[in-house]
Amino acid sequence: MPEQPVTVAVSTVIFGLREHDGEQALHLPLVQRVREPHLGRWALPGGPLRADESLRDAARRNLADTTGLNPAHLEQLYTFGAVDRGAADRVVSVVYWALVRTEEAALTRDDPHVAWYPAHALPPLAFDHEEIVGWAVKRLKAKLEYTHLSHALLPDEFTLGQLREVHEAILGRRLDPANFRRRVEATGTVAPTGAHQAGVRHRPPALYRSTAREELLT
Amino acid sequence: MPEQPVTVAVSTVIFGLREHDGEQALHLPLVQRVREPHLGRWALPGGPLRADESLRDAARRNLADTTGLNPAHLEQLYTFGAVDRGAADRVVSVVYWALVRTEEAALTRDDPHVAWYPAHALPPLAFDHEEIVGWAVKRLKAKLEYTHLSHALLPDEFTLGQLREVHEAILGRRLDPANFRRRVEATGTVAPTGAHQAGVRHRPPALYRSTAREELLT
Repeated sequence: MPEQPVTVAVSTVIFGLREHDGEQALHLPLVQRVREPHLGRWALPGGPLRADESLRDAARRNLADTTGLNPAHLEQLYTFGAVDRGAADRVVSVVYWALVRTEEAALTRDDPHVAWYPAHALPPLAFDHEEIVGWAVKRLKAKLEYTHLSHALLPDEFTLGQLREVHEAILGRRLDPANFRRRVEATGTVAPTGAHQAGVRHRPPALYRSTAREELLT
Repeated sequence: MPEQPVTVAVSTVIFGLREHDGEQALHLPLVQRVREPHLGRWALPGGPLRADESLRDAARRNLADTTGLNPAHLEQLYTFGAVDRGAADRVVSVVYWALVRTEEAALTRDDPHVAWYPAHALPPLAFDHEEIVGWAVKRLKAKLEYTHLSHALLPDEFTLGQLREVHEAILGRRLDPANFRRRVEATGTVAPTGAHQAGVRHRPPALYRSTAREELLT
């Protein structure tokens, strides 16, 4: 008999910002398992790679099936292939990570087996998915430092305060507003639209748009 | 009948410095294919993942089988999984890249189907391996800028001139010696041993050792 084959799965860590305790916080949607092993546990959206789809297409399918959302950013994270990852078969998981825009992440679907959790307060996860989420959060934080990835989470026009809140939500700490403003303006990746935030009476903050977003679209 | 399964392969881009036209140049060992498809073409060392080995162990096996060498650095590059990559089956390739020390890369084995080629003058490669090598070279050059990876290619004691030659070989261009020296000394990742290069009579250059190498060992 031939050796049992290795199965390829694709899983996706989907990041979005949602309210938690009255503040924006980094969240990800999880799927509750409806079969063994790990029946009832929460897991990353994913499943076996189909013979007729690329890895990236499979990651996009994870997004479509779980949240119905379009990614503002989608990127391969790492491939996990330890010999025993907790499944009955040998599974090699190619993991992608995605960002969805804040206004999309706020939407919910009527599916009791899908729920968004704050990245800092996850339930126990199936398989090695806690380790995988840890890698993805680390990569996201690192990329925040040297890319304009945070723009992908915002609407087309945003205030510098909103941009700072995105950074604060991902980094999990407060940033000094004046320093943040100087640092962002120095990068030349945002430009004022000339308009100001509606609904604010006293000194409404200026609106900006990203001049770097196009290179993010994938 | 069940759908044809996806096969997982692990391939490794192995970098070392060897002489080419009287200068150090970035090289990689290739393996000549002894079966169809692409019979006779050169390809990256690799093969199917075995059920009882991790991805990393498979990459180490590629190194051992091809060159018999120990990597000074070994890291996952990317997983390639387009639907048609030129094989009869659907193959998903998890690709690693490795660095071997210069003194080891100089060794040759008596195997007519293994040969080292300069990275800038490769023969036509099988499958999508040219694209894969392109990615690996790009990653190596990028990492050179913000890590101490170049130390991994050198013996325990080296001159700053030798370190510069490693950078020049990888980047494929000359670097100003005085600027390079200042930049390296500013990083604090090398320390003088107190000794000088043997066999040089007039002002023999100082020998250094890496103070950053330990974090490279993997």
